[in-house]
Amino acid sequence: MTEQLIVNFTPTGMIPTKELTPHVPVDVDEIVRDVHKACDLGITMVHLHARDPLSGVPTYKKEIYAEIIRGIRDFAPELIICVSLSGRNFTELSQRADPLYLDGNLKPDMGSLTLSSLNFNQTASINAPSMVQDLARVMKNRGILPELEAFDLGMINYAHYLHRKGLLEPPFYFNLLLGNIACAQANLLHAGMMVNELPNDSCWSLAGIGNGQLRMNSTAIAMGGGVRVGIEDNIWYDAGRTTLATNRALLERIHNLARVNERAVMPPSELRKRLELKPGNGNYGR
Amino acid sequence: MTEQLIVNFTPTGMIPTKELTPHVPVDVDEIVRDVHKACDLGITMVHLHARDPLSGVPTYKKEIYAEIIRGIRDFAPELIICVSLSGRNFTELSQRADPLYLDGNLKPDMGSLTLSSLNFNQTASINAPSMVQDLARVMKNRGILPELEAFDLGMINYAHYLHRKGLLEPPFYFNLLLGNIACAQANLLHAGMMVNELPNDSCWSLAGIGNGQLRMNSTAIAMGGGVRVGIEDNIWYDAGRTTLATNRALLERIHNLARVNERAVMPPSELRKRLELKPGNGNYGR
Repeated sequence: MTEQLIVNFTPTGMIPTKELTPHVPVDVDEIVRDVHKACDLGITMVHLHARDPLSGVPTYKKEIYAEIIRGIRDFAPELIICVSLSGRNFTELSQRADPLYLDGNLKPDMGSLTLSSLNFNQTASINAPSMVQDLARVMKNRGILPELEAFDLGMINYAHYLHRKGLLEPPFYFNLLLGNIACAQANLLHAGMMVNELPNDSCWSLAGIGNGQLRMNSTAIAMGGGVRVGIEDNIWYDAGRTTLATNRALLERIHNLARVNERAVMPPSELRKRLELKPGNGNYGR
Repeated sequence: MTEQLIVNFTPTGMIPTKELTPHVPVDVDEIVRDVHKACDLGITMVHLHARDPLSGVPTYKKEIYAEIIRGIRDFAPELIICVSLSGRNFTELSQRADPLYLDGNLKPDMGSLTLSSLNFNQTASINAPSMVQDLARVMKNRGILPELEAFDLGMINYAHYLHRKGLLEPPFYFNLLLGNIACAQANLLHAGMMVNELPNDSCWSLAGIGNGQLRMNSTAIAMGGGVRVGIEDNIWYDAGRTTLATNRALLERIHNLARVNERAVMPPSELRKRLELKPGNGNYGR
């Protein structure tokens, strides 16, 4: 049997708005509902971005993450939950680390850790070395596994460095996100180089920005990797940008590809074993 | 005969202090003297960082750049002069672009353009997309050629993008700087990948940080590329870090390698032809 497929579901992100697409889940209830449907279909983990309930803009506040996590754990106690610690809009450690301080049944299993500063299409994403190290340290102390996010070749080298410094420990989980205009491109050579750089004992998923999403997801399914998939990375379903994506349709396409490639979707319990995340939920820590 | 060797001399940088090494030229007179000696030996271009005369810390001020450029053009009117527009310490366009507004004989031929945000070992270097584009626009309007600085794979893609947008025009000059901890590493695969991504009609030099300097310089000399070399990138002469480098010793080593590899140092006049920089100096613009 071939390697099971990690499906990392990323329903919301920071950029999509209701104006851009009515299908993006923004409120707590909408996010929980999309994750519920996704679990019924089959996913391994979820990457959450919280939004302010009044303005709809991204928020770091653990109270909002708590509501989402509570809602999800009601129906999917095993699902691996990763919270975003993005620095695109928040610059203080206390802000970015806020959701890591949830406890008990609300504690996330993982937190995203972007491994360097980089440019997105319109804005810089600032993750100074001290911030990356501080976030890694908080996660280590809290027993939360970093979701390592690499947008270019050298960011993976920084993971090796953090490992040598003792701030990261295997097993590792990487999202390799390709197709940002000033970062690695969504092509085979760049993806192959990045996979080639990964430390031993790494799980990895490919993500692609915009039209790169299907290309990278499909490549990863073909080649034994996992996928990160959802409206966060592409609001469009088709390359011609005629049809807005729903999270459900994106996931159904992944399931189709998985079937054809003889890959079963990895259940959360299996990835918990692989990543040494205690079963159940963040309650137990690593 | 093999391709002539571009020697891009970078004597000072932003990091080395007199405390770190007595050999780093910091004052205007010291910089001019080091460049003079380098010209006697043979270089093609110089990459200048100005320092505040009182504190010795980096400054963007065009008045200081003017003094250095005046000093250099007295004895080397053909030398290609590139000013640093680094954003490590300065955040405003008006600061970063300041040396681009020198005129006449003091106008620089080139200005450095880092193609994205990135992390150095200790700090983030913020070059948001709008800043990169604004600096490119000012240089285009002023007839000053960007020295394109790429620290990782994706930054070269951003140069392609700026070219498509009309903000850059061939011929291009690239510094490929390898060996920063969160960027491309000073190895053959990363260097080869980056060279492979360059647009047509590009000149390129390899630079390496720390011990990577000799490795990358020597590789470039072997393979037809240019070198960026000087105390900016490594204050040490040897891999064992027992001997502090002088700019003269670093350049002499490059000349030795060039001789063995049957490569003559490219005179400034030749690179001016190649890059379509009008002969003489910035007086004529491009």
